[in-house]
Amino acid sequence: MAVSGIFYVSVDRGFRMKSWLVALISGIAALVIGLLIGHFAIPKDGITEQGQGSAQDIDESLIRRFMSEVDNKRIEDNLRELSKKPHMATTKGDIDLVNLMLDRWQDKETGLDEAKNMTYNVLLNFPDKNNPNRVAVVAPNGTELFKSRIKEVNYTKDQLDPDVVQPFAAFAPAGECKGRLVYANYGTMDDYQHLNKTINLNNTIAIVKYGGTGRGDKGINGARFGVSGVIVYTDPADINDGKLSDKNETYPHSWYLPPSGVERGSYKSNFGDQLTPYYPAKGYTFRQAVSNIKGLSPIPAQPIGFEDARQLICGLTGDKAPEGWQGGLGCTYRLGPGFHNESSFADSHVTVSVHNKMEIKPSDNVIGIIRGSVEPDRYVIYGNHRDSWVHGAIDPSSGTAVMLEISRVLGKMVKEGKWRPRRSIIFGSWGAEEFGLIGSTEWTEEYYKKLIERTVGYINVDIAVFANATLRANGSPAVQSVVFDAAQQVTVPGHQDLSVYENWKKYSNRTSPLHGVIPNMGSLAADSDYAPFFHYLGISSMDISYTYDKTKTKARIYPAYHTAYDTFDYASRFIDPGFTSHQTVGRTAGNVLLRLADSAILPFNIRDYSEAIEQLYQAAKEEFNTELSNHNISLDPLHSAVTKLKEAADGLHVRISEMQDRSASPLKLRMINDQLMLLERSFLDPMAFPDKLYYRHIIYASQDSAVGTFPGLADAYQRATVEGGSWDDVRKHLTIITHTLESAASTLEAVI
Amino acid sequence: MAVSGIFYVSVDRGFRMKSWLVALISGIAALVIGLLIGHFAIPKDGITEQGQGSAQDIDESLIRRFMSEVDNKRIEDNLRELSKKPHMATTKGDIDLVNLMLDRWQDKETGLDEAKNMTYNVLLNFPDKNNPNRVAVVAPNGTELFKSRIKEVNYTKDQLDPDVVQPFAAFAPAGECKGRLVYANYGTMDDYQHLNKTINLNNTIAIVKYGGTGRGDKGINGARFGVSGVIVYTDPADINDGKLSDKNETYPHSWYLPPSGVERGSYKSNFGDQLTPYYPAKGYTFRQAVSNIKGLSPIPAQPIGFEDARQLICGLTGDKAPEGWQGGLGCTYRLGPGFHNESSFADSHVTVSVHNKMEIKPSDNVIGIIRGSVEPDRYVIYGNHRDSWVHGAIDPSSGTAVMLEISRVLGKMVKEGKWRPRRSIIFGSWGAEEFGLIGSTEWTEEYYKKLIERTVGYINVDIAVFANATLRANGSPAVQSVVFDAAQQVTVPGHQDLSVYENWKKYSNRTSPLHGVIPNMGSLAADSDYAPFFHYLGISSMDISYTYDKTKTKARIYPAYHTAYDTFDYASRFIDPGFTSHQTVGRTAGNVLLRLADSAILPFNIRDYSEAIEQLYQAAKEEFNTELSNHNISLDPLHSAVTKLKEAADGLHVRISEMQDRSASPLKLRMINDQLMLLERSFLDPMAFPDKLYYRHIIYASQDSAVGTFPGLADAYQRATVEGGSWDDVRKHLTIITHTLESAASTLEAVI
Repeated sequence: MAVSGIFYVSVDRGFRMKSWLVALISGIAALVIGLLIGHFAIPKDGITEQGQGSAQDIDESLIRRFMSEVDNKRIEDNLRELSKKPHMATTKGDIDLVNLMLDRWQDKETGLDEAKNMTYNVLLNFPDKNNPNRVAVVAPNGTELFKSRIKEVNYTKDQLDPDVVQPFAAFAPAGECKGRLVYANYGTMDDYQHLNKTINLNNTIAIVKYGGTGRGDKGINGARFGVSGVIVYTDPADINDGKLSDKNETYPHSWYLPPSGVERGSYKSNFGDQLTPYYPAKGYTFRQAVSNIKGLSPIPAQPIGFEDARQLICGLTGDKAPEGWQGGLGCTYRLGPGFHNESSFADSHVTVSVHNKMEIKPSDNVIGIIRGSVEPDRYVIYGNHRDSWVHGAIDPSSGTAVMLEISRVLGKMVKEGKWRPRRSIIFGSWGAEEFGLIGSTEWTEEYYKKLIERTVGYINVDIAVFANATLRANGSPAVQSVVFDAAQQVTVPGHQDLSVYENWKKYSNRTSPLHGVIPNMGSLAADSDYAPFFHYLGISSMDISYTYDKTKTKARIYPAYHTAYDTFDYASRFIDPGFTSHQTVGRTAGNVLLRLADSAILPFNIRDYSEAIEQLYQAAKEEFNTELSNHNISLDPLHSAVTKLKEAADGLHVRISEMQDRSASPLKLRMINDQLMLLERSFLDPMAFPDKLYYRHIIYASQDSAVGTFPGLADAYQRATVEGGSWDDVRKHLTIITHTLESAASTLEAVI
Repeated sequence: MAVSGIFYVSVDRGFRMKSWLVALISGIAALVIGLLIGHFAIPKDGITEQGQGSAQDIDESLIRRFMSEVDNKRIEDNLRELSKKPHMATTKGDIDLVNLMLDRWQDKETGLDEAKNMTYNVLLNFPDKNNPNRVAVVAPNGTELFKSRIKEVNYTKDQLDPDVVQPFAAFAPAGECKGRLVYANYGTMDDYQHLNKTINLNNTIAIVKYGGTGRGDKGINGARFGVSGVIVYTDPADINDGKLSDKNETYPHSWYLPPSGVERGSYKSNFGDQLTPYYPAKGYTFRQAVSNIKGLSPIPAQPIGFEDARQLICGLTGDKAPEGWQGGLGCTYRLGPGFHNESSFADSHVTVSVHNKMEIKPSDNVIGIIRGSVEPDRYVIYGNHRDSWVHGAIDPSSGTAVMLEISRVLGKMVKEGKWRPRRSIIFGSWGAEEFGLIGSTEWTEEYYKKLIERTVGYINVDIAVFANATLRANGSPAVQSVVFDAAQQVTVPGHQDLSVYENWKKYSNRTSPLHGVIPNMGSLAADSDYAPFFHYLGISSMDISYTYDKTKTKARIYPAYHTAYDTFDYASRFIDPGFTSHQTVGRTAGNVLLRLADSAILPFNIRDYSEAIEQLYQAAKEEFNTELSNHNISLDPLHSAVTKLKEAADGLHVRISEMQDRSASPLKLRMINDQLMLLERSFLDPMAFPDKLYYRHIIYASQDSAVGTFPGLADAYQRATVEGGSWDDVRKHLTIITHTLESAASTLEAVI
């Protein structure tokens, strides 16, 4: 517009000049203008379809349109459909949902460019329908005095579905064991150590609460002390704010867990298929023997409801359990061993009978793709698992319902020819997550090389809504800024003047040296499918959801988690009536997705990363420096590396800020973007943790130590100070961290 | 030029039209022209200085100019300067050359953009000047009947230099041992096994020949059979075509090794600094104990000249050695143990006294950089080591003399503003290569992340000229085509109508399914600084030199190798009088360098890679299939992966061929180039060979088996069939290879 205007002005002037002069001047003006347009406006990139070529940048009006189209009713419909049947991994319900995902993503009007399912043959573990697992109390004469429930109590028709799986501890070994009962709190090493001071734990059965440690660890730890079987339950104090009665207090009257509700779960420590570590579980893949799997409970384990647990715990004899071990069953918790004389179980033993079977089963991922217009070889990945334990309305279908709505809105824009992202978008519906992040892990193993070379970021929305108080996000510091940007553009349900960002800051905040008071984005653990992307591949990742107000409930997680009560009825009545929190999560996560996919310069503020690392260094200095000095170990080289990283990050930040015209040079943009994309990769060291499968991220690997600093250093320090480990091990980990940070800094410096 | 011409034509026409029409038409024409210029001619890349922007492609006239300027006289002068003093790693001679490299690369008129030295503190090993190593024969009464020479005989003044290091086996442990002498051929496992059938090797001293196995293995293998010390010499049959006499047959009369000449060398199996495996040997780096180093000879070892060896071997008693063990010392080789009764050494024992000392010393790399104009974040690396054992005229100074001439010609073009490469060029002068590729390894460790992300290729020219018959190149199949392209543009010294390519094909050729009869490019071992780049980082690498006519000499290598006779006099009289072969290597390697640095599309023909892999598969099938079938192991999945890789490579080849206008889309070029660059990386698996430091390349890792196929499969098969190893190990390696090829194929497919 502006161009042709100026052009005619010069023609107008020409009437008062000699014609050759007119021609010359107007010609020169037009030439200059043409040069400018040709240079700046016409994309050189032949790949472009509907995009704006190399110059294609984030379009705020498009983001607004996207957000306005994310529909809570459609999310509700999605969730109803997704959760109508139990869909445990590889069961018929799961396979039906594979087809549902394919149908949606291959839809002519709202589907993606391409969708396909990809199968892996993975080791799973199921109870035996014909021979259910049992916990029992057996009198000395052999009479069975008590038997645990096989099924949860029915309140709605959902629990009657024949495909509701018996509560079980997946990957706990089959076996029958018998012994006197002890109460071992959460089953941590400390807990068993405490018990072991006064009780000979050999051949005992331990009853423990969920929480405090990984599921599998409860058996692994117990076995070290001679315990022969583990019973696990969820204490009402940890999940129900003390509510016990299904007459009026628990579901279906509230969101609280009914007395018979049992949390199922995977009892293995390492993620991915355990027969094919590091390699995709394909037909050609060598499978190690089950006996070589590490990180499984060596002893039988079985979860039960707190109604059953109450009968066992409230009958125990022995010393009173410590104050911190007491719970919400309404009696004094004693340690055992065995039952007190007044109990009907006096002199009786407890048996745990587990009949779980290992099976190699075909599990599908469904992958949906929108091709990028300008940089098809850069991927933004958005995913969630598809498999549940039972109906899985919240876990995972709330996330899948949101994902389907995001992909519908974007797919429609693509099909209508209105938009195509700058970078490629890949949606993933992962299989067998509940058995230990298996589908996502196998996929990242299969495409390891391609994904680490090309992936810009991974967005995980598993349980989209735990409750409807506030946004919660965990992620790499690299993504903090883009999550904040999105959260500032979305408003809280029912409050058109309150942004998700401001609301989040009210619930959870911290003071950042760079930004002042900001919402507190947590770091990533390994409890959903982001784990292989982040810990194994070093892809900047995040996990987004809506969650509860911690001042109003002490529940460890939403109470129906992994039980037969996680149904559409439960979700729509007690988690998010109206589905507006789902909608809010969809708008926020989709906003992030669009920013990652369309921004000319990736929206990573790497100064947030250097700030986070600086804080880890400060923690190490405060906690460890004295003792390290005593062993002639200096933190100075680490400090120097931290400083170099900060300077390099600041330098790159300045170079980005100075790039006024982001459309000028596609290769210069790409160079900067590659530095931003690959920063997270530079924190990987496959040799850092030889004992921890898949943990390669020096800054955020899992750790045993409670000190919030570099995990390798924290754990080596703990081994050296508490467990008699070697100080050379501390020196080695300091080298690894220092080298990693130096190396990361060098990737951020001005190129060559 | 063409533009302003057309512009004035339209103005000329205007005189016959109304002035507004004139203005309009000329304006439109100018606008269109401007658009075209703006679009196609003005680089959008702000980085560009003298380059042609994103469109910058290889300029054949520039390559011709480069080649014409490579000057044999300057190479000769370089070599004279580089080899005038002994320059063993970290000695004064080496440090002087660090300064020489810096001076050249920082020269105002012919230097590079930047040059710097980078220091690592690395574990080296030196003999004790005051307590020289010795091999002696000691009579039962204690009389010393024979002592090996400490220095090589002087023929020119070079050997008198006080800095000539005593011949020694670097990293062989200090110690004194005494025993009866046995002759163990090359000291391979087979050789010792053969001896062990008839002789109790406990507490014997073995004398062995260079060749047949790695230096360190001679001691490692011997120690397994109880041997307590090893004496190593170069047999005249292996190096001198039988010539023995320094009166007229050997240097200074010819290129043959004088009787007192001794090959020095590193006796360690793994490369890089051995105290800091995987991490750069910086001040902050943790150092493991020397006792933890793997791959060192556990027993003393000392090399001697064949004059000394003759006295020992020709006095041996015992059975006659097998025909294949006989050598060129002019007597019948017997096995021992001990000397025959007619010998003056009868009843005597042999002693080996080694006084080598471990020292951590600062070793420098010198790095020189020419910044890329269009893609500064893509690196082409050209390097050679700088350290020698003595004067090192051939090894390594012939290569350095060539590198300095290449960098001078390119530096001058840059300083004159005539040229700047599309990609960045990095020259490396590596330290301490002779002690086991230490400088290059530490550098690749320090910048591992940056280098694997950005490096297009690595060119190594170590010994530039072994002899002046023909080019020899070893390399990744990816670089075969660019080496051939260069070799076709260079002519053989003194034959203006014979290309290096055609001459090479005469000396060494093979029939390629894709190309017919072509020169035979070998694969890369691990005997120079390309090893860390190729095996550890997976960078497409090559090693280029001029070499001898194998029909005219059976010498294992040029005879003065690693001796005090590798001098400028030797090089200029017997290796390359006139230095025209050096010039030819400089033209060829420089031509390759320019093609890698300037080509818009990387000159890698990946179909050559799929051809090579197909051949490895065929070898596996022919050699292993029957026995594998007997163990129910199928090669079908491997075959399927090989086929997928071939199809993906063919597909990419077609897509490249179809890209007519290589300047149209910088990001599309980049996408293709990244696929080409990263193919080699996709063959790495850091978990494939947990026992072999630094070998991660599934296709070309080192191997023990003689079968020319995938090394992991070949060695696992050998272990299973010969050494009682597990067939599951074979299955596991088949999985690794199959997965790697599948993964590589997926990186070559059309993106998304």
